[in-house]
Amino acid sequence: MNKHIAPIPLEKSYRLLNIGPTILVSARHDGVDNVMAAAWACALDYAPSRLTVVLGKTAKTRELIEKSGRFVIQIPTVAQLQLTYQVGNRSLFKEPDKLKLSGVELFGIDGHDLPFVAGCSGWLACKLIPEPRNQETYDLFIGEITGAWSDTRVFKEGHWNFENADPALRSLHYVAGGHFYAIGEPLLVAEVQEED
Amino acid sequence: MNKHIAPIPLEKSYRLLNIGPTILVSARHDGVDNVMAAAWACALDYAPSRLTVVLGKTAKTRELIEKSGRFVIQIPTVAQLQLTYQVGNRSLFKEPDKLKLSGVELFGIDGHDLPFVAGCSGWLACKLIPEPRNQETYDLFIGEITGAWSDTRVFKEGHWNFENADPALRSLHYVAGGHFYAIGEPLLVAEVQEED
Repeated sequence: MNKHIAPIPLEKSYRLLNIGPTILVSARHDGVDNVMAAAWACALDYAPSRLTVVLGKTAKTRELIEKSGRFVIQIPTVAQLQLTYQVGNRSLFKEPDKLKLSGVELFGIDGHDLPFVAGCSGWLACKLIPEPRNQETYDLFIGEITGAWSDTRVFKEGHWNFENADPALRSLHYVAGGHFYAIGEPLLVAEVQEED
Repeated sequence: MNKHIAPIPLEKSYRLLNIGPTILVSARHDGVDNVMAAAWACALDYAPSRLTVVLGKTAKTRELIEKSGRFVIQIPTVAQLQLTYQVGNRSLFKEPDKLKLSGVELFGIDGHDLPFVAGCSGWLACKLIPEPRNQETYDLFIGEITGAWSDTRVFKEGHWNFENADPALRSLHYVAGGHFYAIGEPLLVAEVQEED
């Protein structure tokens, strides 16, 4: 594993998603790995740490998740703009070489039989919480986060640190039609209160 | 209504949420209006246009939504940083003057009996799709979008246009503890393909 990657406490892992980044979803089943891009992923709970992700019925990655009950949500970077767009637009059904053609390199993390995408800024290993009605009616999947890691150059001690890192490590925020934004400048409220 | 505000076709309205902004949720019931901030809102479908939002059981706004079946999701701006933090941390249960203390100004839109927050960059009027299991188990609410509007200085023709607008109109992306990011610079993929 890359020397910059370190685990995040699960109760802080929602902060990877809090800024609303476009994400990559990856899954493995029966020797097949796939990766897709999605803009529709969101934190759902702190403890237990949970998230939601919307997966269309035509996605091969959805099939792998339904069969294996496991997936990874990871945060791609500005350096991965083309890769993110490619995995969001190519289909493994049509192109068996999709991952290679898109420039995806996978790596493993001990104890998790899942394909992690190299070069991202954060990773959330998830176990599917089966909710058949949500999955069928809304294409909505709920995952429980079982492991979380970040690239410590850009996320550590529970906070993103984009302003002091290489701009190529910033998160991507998709609009439509190949049009994204990078995350921008930090803002701190004048007077922080206790949350109620 | 402010002269810069114009309707968005419903099938394009998901693009307000696609970039993952922190949002304000507002609702009205029986003469009571409230506004809260949330980072956990997400697009769910294009057609019909739907979204999800997570609303904790202690939120007064949740109670108003459960009773009225209606709510607004709106996108606050950098100029509304303090307001966003305030409505996210004050509770109407404890402070009846919460909205005034937080600097919230509400306005109306014909045909929608809902409180819209002035100064935002986009607004989504929603009808609750009741899903009791999601609401009770996960605090997860699904809304169908019945009307959408944007400030055309920053979102028009289906696309955000932050780069050519006042930086005070940029979206907010919350991390934790009063720490936000503004949305940043635009990125366009080199070769746009047909989506499959």
